[in-house]
Amino acid sequence: MAIRSGELSPVDHVDDVLARLAGDTCNAVVRLLADEARRDAKELAAELQGGGWRGPLHGVAVAVKDLIDVAGVPTGCGSNVLRDAAPATQDAAVVAKLREAGAVVVAKTHTHEFAYGPTGDIAAQGPARNPHDPTRITGGSSSGSAAAVAAGHVPLALGTDTGCSIRTPAALCGVVGFKPTYGRLSTAGVFPLSESCDHIGLLAADVHGVSVGYDVLARNNSADGVGTGGGIQPPGVDGVTVGVPTDDYWRVADPVIADAVERAAARLAEAGAVVSRITMPGIDELAACYRPIVGAEAYTTHEHWLTTRREDYQPITAERLAAAAGQSATEYVAAQRTRRRVTAELRARLSEVDVLLTPTTPLRATPIGAVEAAGLQVRPALLSLTLPFDLTGWPAVSVPVAPSDGGLPVGVQLVGVRMEDRAVLRVAGTLR
Amino acid sequence: MAIRSGELSPVDHVDDVLARLAGDTCNAVVRLLADEARRDAKELAAELQGGGWRGPLHGVAVAVKDLIDVAGVPTGCGSNVLRDAAPATQDAAVVAKLREAGAVVVAKTHTHEFAYGPTGDIAAQGPARNPHDPTRITGGSSSGSAAAVAAGHVPLALGTDTGCSIRTPAALCGVVGFKPTYGRLSTAGVFPLSESCDHIGLLAADVHGVSVGYDVLARNNSADGVGTGGGIQPPGVDGVTVGVPTDDYWRVADPVIADAVERAAARLAEAGAVVSRITMPGIDELAACYRPIVGAEAYTTHEHWLTTRREDYQPITAERLAAAAGQSATEYVAAQRTRRRVTAELRARLSEVDVLLTPTTPLRATPIGAVEAAGLQVRPALLSLTLPFDLTGWPAVSVPVAPSDGGLPVGVQLVGVRMEDRAVLRVAGTLR
Repeated sequence: MAIRSGELSPVDHVDDVLARLAGDTCNAVVRLLADEARRDAKELAAELQGGGWRGPLHGVAVAVKDLIDVAGVPTGCGSNVLRDAAPATQDAAVVAKLREAGAVVVAKTHTHEFAYGPTGDIAAQGPARNPHDPTRITGGSSSGSAAAVAAGHVPLALGTDTGCSIRTPAALCGVVGFKPTYGRLSTAGVFPLSESCDHIGLLAADVHGVSVGYDVLARNNSADGVGTGGGIQPPGVDGVTVGVPTDDYWRVADPVIADAVERAAARLAEAGAVVSRITMPGIDELAACYRPIVGAEAYTTHEHWLTTRREDYQPITAERLAAAAGQSATEYVAAQRTRRRVTAELRARLSEVDVLLTPTTPLRATPIGAVEAAGLQVRPALLSLTLPFDLTGWPAVSVPVAPSDGGLPVGVQLVGVRMEDRAVLRVAGTLR
Repeated sequence: MAIRSGELSPVDHVDDVLARLAGDTCNAVVRLLADEARRDAKELAAELQGGGWRGPLHGVAVAVKDLIDVAGVPTGCGSNVLRDAAPATQDAAVVAKLREAGAVVVAKTHTHEFAYGPTGDIAAQGPARNPHDPTRITGGSSSGSAAAVAAGHVPLALGTDTGCSIRTPAALCGVVGFKPTYGRLSTAGVFPLSESCDHIGLLAADVHGVSVGYDVLARNNSADGVGTGGGIQPPGVDGVTVGVPTDDYWRVADPVIADAVERAAARLAEAGAVVSRITMPGIDELAACYRPIVGAEAYTTHEHWLTTRREDYQPITAERLAAAAGQSATEYVAAQRTRRRVTAELRARLSEVDVLLTPTTPLRATPIGAVEAAGLQVRPALLSLTLPFDLTGWPAVSVPVAPSDGGLPVGVQLVGVRMEDRAVLRVAGTLR
């Protein structure tokens, strides 16, 4: 890359990114870390001049969702509840890994309040705006990370995904968003939404970008089967079996989205994949586990504040969190059992499938504040096609496909069934 | 061993065990599998004569707690609720492993009803009786497995342990009971009590016996770090740090039990261990997580039957199960979080400790049906010193120590903090 060759100095790159972020009109940034970033860029430039090179993220700017701790900066979670939060005392584990690899943290980005929503328009800072149409949502909850990447401000951003929160904003903003296998990346230093479903991941303009980031995050990770990092692999799908589910659950009304899935399937087939229509019995039962699990876990975290500081939440957030107040332990335990059972059943049933191909969302970016669109409830619709894989824990990536009407972005989702994180990215690389 | 050398035929050994079990007076056996066992013994004898030897369990009789599936036999769980249960269609995973290694399943053994009690005197079959005094309990819930081993009927038995259910009956009956690390052995084919705390394990007359059994169960186990089995290791404690907790939580009133711990500590020190007095802050907070976790999970399993067939439960079992009916999801989720946090805190705090040494129980075998003894509530007392390690998931073994008053048996507990299953057994081998 240009930085290693000396063509582009980390200082110039970071200055350029900071200037772009300062001029952002999407409400993508909640805190610009200009001084810290310039200082880091200088040090990394000096290191480079001294012959040191930490790898492909050396001197590269990254943005961090404001749910993830960056040392010295408060983590605001998009909420007035944390208006007076003390600065984080240390970097989240994933931030520390990026820094070790030479990345420069340039900004904290907009998040749907406490990551509890798929739209990105509910936050203390007001709505994030879609770079493709500022009257429309980015999707959420990693709203600012998606918008900042989509606007071309920053090459790489960290996000979190509990039901859709990396993949849905990636789809709606036209970038790549990757959620690795559950448990693969540490959630230490990340404000929890649901310990059972929280995933950390990455957004970038293309699959190569998230692959470079993932390679750093998974490095020396004892939870990672690959051990010390498998390195970025070239795209490839030869002999890979791609399952396209045909259940009603996956049907989308928007013909442009349906067409994008077919075109992605055709592209994969051309490249050597075997595309197979499959069904996923139990998918509705699986999806129904989401609310009791995530609702109970989120409520448990927020119970105290909901009692003492309810007025500091955006009203819809407080209402949705409080809806889980009366839930029984049995409902929760039963949902966890169903989730494990259906996951095992699906994995057994799909034993011939390497990756699934689905639409990422049934809607494209809706107007800010819209509750309904095209006859669908926006909130559940934007979660529906992604949340199954937070429940199964399987790796999933949303990849943009050029919309046939030339309009708002569309994303398709690739999900590893028998494939591990890097293999899924390798397949995704065929699309973008 | 005698079987390999041909000195003892599997047929004679199994016949002998069956005769002993048929004459059992402890109510240890709920179903004798005489025909199947004799058939298996004959086959294994023929195999041996043909030069085949499957290992140290070849032709050895094992008893199986009646919570664990044996193909062709109903799993009764000590309850009239399962009076008409169909025969299990396949062996539980652990039973299948024992059979592969040549073990002969001779009997299903008494269990406290649905494994939901530490006394072994509540079951459709009536109370199990302690071989050392038939008016006293065996402890539970692996009551029959402990009694059958203690009476010398059978060399090895399978049990389960959710709060105490292998270690407490082992202590009260004077045998060795081992609960490996949580998740190490498959629970497939075992009736669940609490998926968060259920452990499978073994009872035998001495540490070598459980080690031989464990080596078979952990063989080719992908969840086992040791991979294809590390083999039985000779006893040894040289340089091992043994932590003896001194918190009030671990104090026992029975001077014979307290003395047993001190004598075990002295024995370990003589053998080369470093014995260190330590404290475990958070132990009360940890223990308090047990009831909300296990109560909710057990209730979820039994909710339907409690509504439709309550009269088929023993009254105290139904009452205890139903006590969790109103529990909130938040209480459950919070308990799981506390459990994880305190476990991590204790592991960090005890970073210099290899194994803990504690009493297994604060009471010795109490009279059948007794609710109180020596000023303690029998049920919680018999769970108190063992349940913390079902919550942490650390491997734990109860080893008998000759009681200084020559009376009822006493057990001490060794728990791996930084040590794995086999290493804990190696230390325990120094004591018995």
